Amino acid sequence: MKNKIYYRLIISVILLSSGHFSYAQVPLRQFEPIGFAQVQIDDSFWKPKIDKVATVTLQACINYTEYKTPRIRNFEIAAGKRKGKFEGIFYDDSDVYKALEAISYSIKNHHDSLLEQKADEWIDKIAAAQLKDGYINTYFTLNGLDKRWTDMSMHEDYNGGHLIEAAVAYYNATGKRKLLDVTIRFADHFDSLFGPGKRHWVTGHEELELALVKLYKTTNDSRYLKLANWLLEERGHGYAYGYTWTDWKDTAYAQDKTPVRDTKEITGHAVRAMYLYTGAADVASFTNDDGYVNAMKTVWDDVVNRNMYLTGGIGSSGNNEGFSVDYDLPNEQAYCETCASVGMVLWNQRMNLLTGESKYIDVLERSLYNGALDGLSLSGDHFFYGNPLASTGKNARREWFGTACCPANIARLVASLGNYIYAKNDTAIWVNLFVGSKTSAKIGRSTINVEQQTNYPWDGNIKIHMDPDKKTKFALHVRIPGWASGKPVPGDLYHFINYSDKKISLYINGKEAPYTNDKGYAIINHEWKKGDIVELNLPMDVEKIAAKETVTADSGRIALQRGPLVYCVEGVDNNGHALNILLPDNATFTSSFEKDLLNGVTVIKTEAPVITVSNDGLSVTTTNKTITAIPYYAWCNRGSNDMEVWLPTKIKNVRLNY
Amino acid sequence: MKNKIYYRLIISVILLSSGHFSYAQVPLRQFEPIGFAQVQIDDSFWKPKIDKVATVTLQACINYTEYKTPRIRNFEIAAGKRKGKFEGIFYDDSDVYKALEAISYSIKNHHDSLLEQKADEWIDKIAAAQLKDGYINTYFTLNGLDKRWTDMSMHEDYNGGHLIEAAVAYYNATGKRKLLDVTIRFADHFDSLFGPGKRHWVTGHEELELALVKLYKTTNDSRYLKLANWLLEERGHGYAYGYTWTDWKDTAYAQDKTPVRDTKEITGHAVRAMYLYTGAADVASFTNDDGYVNAMKTVWDDVVNRNMYLTGGIGSSGNNEGFSVDYDLPNEQAYCETCASVGMVLWNQRMNLLTGESKYIDVLERSLYNGALDGLSLSGDHFFYGNPLASTGKNARREWFGTACCPANIARLVASLGNYIYAKNDTAIWVNLFVGSKTSAKIGRSTINVEQQTNYPWDGNIKIHMDPDKKTKFALHVRIPGWASGKPVPGDLYHFINYSDKKISLYINGKEAPYTNDKGYAIINHEWKKGDIVELNLPMDVEKIAAKETVTADSGRIALQRGPLVYCVEGVDNNGHALNILLPDNATFTSSFEKDLLNGVTVIKTEAPVITVSNDGLSVTTTNKTITAIPYYAWCNRGSNDMEVWLPTKIKNVRLNY
Repeated sequence: MKNKIYYRLIISVILLSSGHFSYAQVPLRQFEPIGFAQVQIDDSFWKPKIDKVATVTLQACINYTEYKTPRIRNFEIAAGKRKGKFEGIFYDDSDVYKALEAISYSIKNHHDSLLEQKADEWIDKIAAAQLKDGYINTYFTLNGLDKRWTDMSMHEDYNGGHLIEAAVAYYNATGKRKLLDVTIRFADHFDSLFGPGKRHWVTGHEELELALVKLYKTTNDSRYLKLANWLLEERGHGYAYGYTWTDWKDTAYAQDKTPVRDTKEITGHAVRAMYLYTGAADVASFTNDDGYVNAMKTVWDDVVNRNMYLTGGIGSSGNNEGFSVDYDLPNEQAYCETCASVGMVLWNQRMNLLTGESKYIDVLERSLYNGALDGLSLSGDHFFYGNPLASTGKNARREWFGTACCPANIARLVASLGNYIYAKNDTAIWVNLFVGSKTSAKIGRSTINVEQQTNYPWDGNIKIHMDPDKKTKFALHVRIPGWASGKPVPGDLYHFINYSDKKISLYINGKEAPYTNDKGYAIINHEWKKGDIVELNLPMDVEKIAAKETVTADSGRIALQRGPLVYCVEGVDNNGHALNILLPDNATFTSSFEKDLLNGVTVIKTEAPVITVSNDGLSVTTTNKTITAIPYYAWCNRGSNDMEVWLPTKIKNVRLNY
Repeated sequence: MKNKIYYRLIISVILLSSGHFSYAQVPLRQFEPIGFAQVQIDDSFWKPKIDKVATVTLQACINYTEYKTPRIRNFEIAAGKRKGKFEGIFYDDSDVYKALEAISYSIKNHHDSLLEQKADEWIDKIAAAQLKDGYINTYFTLNGLDKRWTDMSMHEDYNGGHLIEAAVAYYNATGKRKLLDVTIRFADHFDSLFGPGKRHWVTGHEELELALVKLYKTTNDSRYLKLANWLLEERGHGYAYGYTWTDWKDTAYAQDKTPVRDTKEITGHAVRAMYLYTGAADVASFTNDDGYVNAMKTVWDDVVNRNMYLTGGIGSSGNNEGFSVDYDLPNEQAYCETCASVGMVLWNQRMNLLTGESKYIDVLERSLYNGALDGLSLSGDHFFYGNPLASTGKNARREWFGTACCPANIARLVASLGNYIYAKNDTAIWVNLFVGSKTSAKIGRSTINVEQQTNYPWDGNIKIHMDPDKKTKFALHVRIPGWASGKPVPGDLYHFINYSDKKISLYINGKEAPYTNDKGYAIINHEWKKGDIVELNLPMDVEKIAAKETVTADSGRIALQRGPLVYCVEGVDNNGHALNILLPDNATFTSSFEKDLLNGVTVIKTEAPVITVSNDGLSVTTTNKTITAIPYYAWCNRGSNDMEVWLPTKIKNVRLNY
């Protein structure tokens, strides 16, 4: 094993230093995702959300980026086309880029000439603000270029990374090169300053790494991959400089305490960590660097075993927008930034591609349907920055934020949802998410049309129509979610209680399908012909979940899950209160779909003891009542009120008038 | 009135620009404090705390400043006497200075040659780290002098201010000039760079202003007073520069949004605000600048009417360590930094001196006995940084902090308590605080020995022995606390409920004393002779307090106060819980001194409904129990546990397993 790693490292070093990359070795990636542009989503759960993003969320982003805040104006001023000074925060440029990226995905899904016109208008302004040497950053252009590239905490790299992501997305959506050319000039400028034998640079907020890999994939210029790899290698050696204000913070805050390949545990700022690990996985997928892959596996174990909420959210502490100590997962104070859950989706996809293991999609699905989706209101125009798992009614969805990373981030994720459903290699197709959708894939010389029909996540029946243009033998890998087979999440942080094995059934054309199990997938080796239908039935029981004892915040509490969805109790459904409800061990549940509630959701009901206050307010009693639980992602869409995910099974203590 | 202000301003401007100050006008200050060096404290409440600071707290400060953190080492490295690089935070020098200041006060109270030796040793190291041009700051000396004085958020001014305070204190305590000379060189260096016609400077963390006034008083060099005045005038004009990281913060954060003299409300970081206002009051006391005095009065009204906790703590929000919006005074989340309460003592004393109004001492006393004193453990070696008014048991006193401003700040306050007890002018003596102590004062040609004997705050009887060396006619002003006459605090934020007028009695030599009332003082005009005894009796009933309705955090709740002390209910005295207790409107109270509890405290007891959990943990009942309340400052000295200051009178809602 060690020899193998050593050999791969040697190869990587040779390839990197020679400036050429090749796929001469067996690539680490098991398969490639089918991109969202090849996936048409008509899912009853997701399609309305994608449409809402296209029509409402992007308008909110445009409104706040251009009109209600000076983000676009900063570009005009930097270009000398308008008088004024920089206003806002030094990382505000990134919000423009991220909105452009979301617009790109959205217009690729469904063309919208007004949105494209707006994007072109912004791109002209961005291009005009670029300096001749390729540098682009309105904060430094307007506040003193002498200070550029002197302080790694100032997000010049982060902004540049989002510029690249936007440009690649827009180029892929429209074929227009203008922003891509801006981006290439910027990347070349960065490359001229930093790299082996040049100046050191440790990205203060990781993002540029994964972006440079995208630029490499788009341009095929291996310098960008080398640069991404070099940026990873820069970390953990004390190379950082600047950091004026954050000096006092532990280097762990920006994952600069140890070299990436030696990382054993997740630390610091959660979004930074996610973007770094995504970038490391991306680089490794080209350099075949086992060191990174193994480090990422180790860190991932640390996340899912010790530092992840049941919602797939991460980063429990508001102090550093990130991690504190293992098992510190407070519910009411949970930070769980929306962007960190978006990052979990990005990173876990890469880990799935590198390993072929479905457990990464289990986590991706959890973060997607719970921690991330909670960040977007049903109306599409209000957002959560943090996503706590309990509330005394003080939380509210907001139209925008001073630091406005989350709105465009959730928008770009939803708009590009198609990226996460299917994957393929030369000999097989993977179905990772259960989303009503169509796609097609080449297997050998055959074109396989694939169509999913499902009412997931409300229903566990998924029909997969397989339509090859000619009879073709290949393997279909259908993900069997961990939650459907006794494990709510990978690792041992959470477990079902009173779980009894359920039947998962898989049919081809109405007959039980022969399949093998590997890496969490049901693999059907079959000679596929037109009209074949695979039918998967996942059990959709209400399950009770307990956390490991070391998670003191969840001690003596249980949570409810049905399918991939975590549930919560919200005051509005329960006489105004949620924190006065017990869920004894023997509680039983019913579930029913309510089409008029919260755009249509399956609710869970149970009879449970509730603490009720006497009319004179001087005493309390305990009475059994019917309790309604709703999907976590849908809470706080009817105003601010109490909410709780983890309900106590016994009373330990009581607080009055919280 | 306006003409008068104008006249005074003109005079001030002339005086300032001519470089001369005089007391030609009627000084604004009504009287001057009698300094702690002239006050011997033998109080049963305070003397043990002062001794504890001298023997334990200062050792903790030395231990952490010199041995457990690299604060002293930074000076050695900056002086070139040791190899290494700067470690810690850029404002860490200030902790060394503040510890030196506390040591100075302590050795002046009670000589301790070992402490003085330690101070001399530190001073040698500090002096060695000063640059030839007078600059001193280990962070910039070791991280690049090219960056000094370029970023106002980097605390060079703040560190310098604490250096001055330490030097003045040590000079006054020992007569040794070495640190004072360092200080003068530093102040002259600053003066050479900044001021009218030179560069602008807005102190990023105010402190230098009040320190420069101290330096002026010590050296009689009016340049320092002019500089302090100029620093005040710099604020609010957009002159700030640097602020790399804090750009995004509103200028209100550092009170730089409006000119000081136009300030109408308190904003931003609480400690910064307190030090600014103290400095403004100090400058005004010499320049007779009504503009500052009136602004300070307006801000003070804003504090006591809208932004102060019952404990005298201020700064409710941890986000900015300061103020959010009016009436936002959450109890569990209260930040209430110890340093801000220390600042309240400093500022309110100045306001009392400028106006002669005892209401400022009412606030000073409240902050001192509650919000500030809570910052110091009974053992003297554990500290609170924040001082919340409710706890679910998550709070713990700590040995030290990363940002370690609070320990030395509470140490220097307690060590210099004598500063706040007495004041005088040529014709009168003021008794502001009731503390067993002796002092003497010159009135005309007479020396008046004054001695207080009291068991305050446990007991309302205060005997004041007046011993003039010869019969002398003058006025004795004895403060009648607002809380003793129906007003728990100035303003309308809090009020007594069910209050009935109590008798305040004042005797001379056993006979009812004739006195007049003015500005909150009982004024006894008398020809004093040896052996005269004034006896004040303040009512020491348990009072119930309610907050104004706009303070939603206290809505439907009452707090208990006895004398100047705010009380709280702590779990350890009440079967482990405090948040399950009701305090109905008709509750009655008893109080008793318990000498073995918490170094001796008066406790309050009452019968009250308590929510009790059934043995099986599945239901709750309401039962009457005896509840014990202790003084707020003494909580959390028996481990972490529940605590609540504001108890509900009725149950509105219930939270299980908080």
